[in-house]
Formats: sequence, structure tokens, C-alpha cells
Amino acid sequence: MDTLDGKLFTPQDVAALREIILHRRDVRGGRFIDKPVGQQEIDQLLMAALHAPSVGFSQPWDFVLIRDKTIRQQVRDSFNAVNAGAQADFGKRRDQYASLKLEGILEAALNMAVFYKPSSGPVLGQTAMPETGLYSVVCAIQNMWLMARALNIGLGWVSILDPEKVCRIVNAPPGHQLVAYLCIGYTDGFYARPELEILEWEKRRELESVVQYDRYP
Amino acid sequence: MDTLDGKLFTPQDVAALREIILHRRDVRGGRFIDKPVGQQEIDQLLMAALHAPSVGFSQPWDFVLIRDKTIRQQVRDSFNAVNAGAQADFGKRRDQYASLKLEGILEAALNMAVFYKPSSGPVLGQTAMPETGLYSVVCAIQNMWLMARALNIGLGWVSILDPEKVCRIVNAPPGHQLVAYLCIGYTDGFYARPELEILEWEKRRELESVVQYDRYP
Repeated sequence: MDTLDGKLFTPQDVAALREIILHRRDVRGGRFIDKPVGQQEIDQLLMAALHAPSVGFSQPWDFVLIRDKTIRQQVRDSFNAVNAGAQADFGKRRDQYASLKLEGILEAALNMAVFYKPSSGPVLGQTAMPETGLYSVVCAIQNMWLMARALNIGLGWVSILDPEKVCRIVNAPPGHQLVAYLCIGYTDGFYARPELEILEWEKRRELESVVQYDRYP
Repeated sequence: MDTLDGKLFTPQDVAALREIILHRRDVRGGRFIDKPVGQQEIDQLLMAALHAPSVGFSQPWDFVLIRDKTIRQQVRDSFNAVNAGAQADFGKRRDQYASLKLEGILEAALNMAVFYKPSSGPVLGQTAMPETGLYSVVCAIQNMWLMARALNIGLGWVSILDPEKVCRIVNAPPGHQLVAYLCIGYTDGFYARPELEILEWEKRRELESVVQYDRYP
């Protein structure tokens, strides 16, 4: 067994992480600028992803980096179809919903489809809660999201898509499951608060409303 | 609309985040030490969680902080029952599986059950991919995990549990779904590499094996 690692982080490290967490935003269309994301930055994002936790160290992730504009246009078409259908769900808020810019598929320098690739055998820690395989992929995405912000690169997660359609567009092998479709690129800035908070679509939840002690009453 | 935030992170911030990501570990039993986690540290963890991304800014999370030993013993009993059943899944590796210490429920200073609390109405971005609500909660957990490591606090995710049983133990309201059960506390150190890598349970995947360009061949 390796010896223990003596690494101790400092209050300055805590402050840096705290600032990155507080300034991370979901970046949609209208904010991305025409500036390429270099290979060094892409490597930093993927490094962050590959060092995420995964159930049973299964690392069940697969990343498709998409620059091709024809493929992106197909994904955009799927977004448009699904988004048009979703508007009706929002009743009297449908006009506000329709006014929102919810993706940056064509404007962002880079797109990334992130898949869950199930393991062929049983995975330690996953047998009682099979969904933890998908959760490992989400941890990888969150690591990338924070790293992107630290690199002053915007990232937006588009979930208004038909996941089966995206699988067909990128020719994903059978069994692969789309977890996220990401738009990645430099921006002209990040909003000071989440866009849906600024627009009063939803209110921020206070700490007291989401914490219990020992058990629910 | 708020003006854009001019915050730019530096290479030092990137390096701090990179180190935190690389040194984060899943901490199990045997490494936690008997030292309380203070309220200030708990507040930092929860701050990190509450500033995670969430689909449609729905913030669909709920956190139960558990110090009560009777409740923890009940969760430990569920772990023991589920873990005994899981061993058979691992065939000729079952002896190695049985030798692994996979939880620190009683040793850690603090436990935390993390739930997904579905919204009452439709959520922007969740209508086509309902699972993104659960994924938001996972993003909150990964933020906490990184903040814990920055604070030199260990965190272990226990998924060898019957989630319905844990819901009953903490009296979770109907509809709440257990996403994770976490053990949190100071440790005598962090392994230099993931424990399951050191023990050769699984190999680390190389970058080339998990990245595609534009589409699968």
C-alpha cells in the first residue's frame, strides 16, 4: 500500500476554490465569443474529468469533442424541436420561456457530448444503487465546469434535447447513455448571478430551507 | 439585467483547483480520526453545495446532517446487510471484496444524507431529460467533496445501502430520493492514489481510451 500523502491545503486554496465555485455560471448563447479553445485548455478540462470520483473506480465516462458544424447543426435541430414542444409545459410563463436563450451550440468554440458507458461486469458500490454509474459521469462534468471557470472559459449544459437522437447523430455504441451535452468557449463575461435568478425565473433557496438535523421531523 | 462580472482567475487559481482535484479521495473506514468538524467548516461545505449548478435553477437538494449514533447504527446495519449480499456478485474476487473496508459510518465525525426533492411543477431544462434533477444534486455533492478536500477533511460516498431503508430511517418525506450517503471527517492522511487503484481492483483509464472527435467511428 502506498504511504499516505502529506498534502495539506491552505486557507488561500480554500479561498480560490470558493471563488471559482461562486463565479461559475451556466453560459448560453449570446455570450460566447469567436476565440478558439486551445489544446492545452482542453487537456486541463479532460484532466479534471478523469480525476473525478467514480463508483468502484469504474471511470464509466466517454467524451466526444465536437467541432464539426454539420453535426452541431443536427444537434441544434434536435434542440429546436424539443424546445418548441417544451414551451407548452410552462402555461402562462410560456412567453417568458420562449424569450430565453437556452443554448450556444453553434456559437461556442467547442461542443462536448458526455456519455455513460456501462461496465461489462458488476461494479463495486454500484450493485445496490445502479444509478451511481451515471452519477460518476456527473462528477466528471462538474470537475470540468469548475476547471473551465478557473480558465475563464464558459460552459453551458444543454438538456433540452432528445438523448436518443444525439446518440444517433454521433453514432454512439449501443448501451452508451447521453448524460450531458456541453457548449464550451470563451465569453465576453460571466453574469454576477445565475441568469435565471436575475430574470426572477426562480428564487435562490436559503440554507435553512434545505438542511435538517439527524432526521426529518 | 445585472452587468457582467469582470472576475478573471489566474494561473495560480487554476493550479490550486488542479491540486485539489488531484488530491481528492474517497475516504473509508480506518482513516477517520476522532476530531470534530466545526460549524464554520460545515458552513463552507454547504455554501459549496448551494452554489452548484442546477437544472432551471431548481436547486432540488436537501441535506440531512447526522450526528446521532442510533441513527447511524441503523444505517450501518443496512450497509452490512446489503454488503453481505453484494459479495456473491464478485465471483472469484469475493474474498478480496470481503476484505475491503467500504464505509466509515460510525468512525466519521459526521454523516450526511443527500436527497433529491422533485419540484412541484415543470422545471426549465428538465422536461426532456428528467434525470437532470438528480444530476443537479450530484453537482452539489461534487462541490462539497472538493471543498472538503481543500479544508483537509475526508469525505466518503457510501452507495452499498438500501436507499428506501435510509429514507425510512431519517423519515424522509414521500417523493424524496436518496442520492448519496456521505461520511465526513478529519483523517490521518489521504492516499497518494485512489485506494482501488493501489489495490489493483481496477486500472486507471488513459485519456486516449475515453475521448472521441466529432463522432464515433
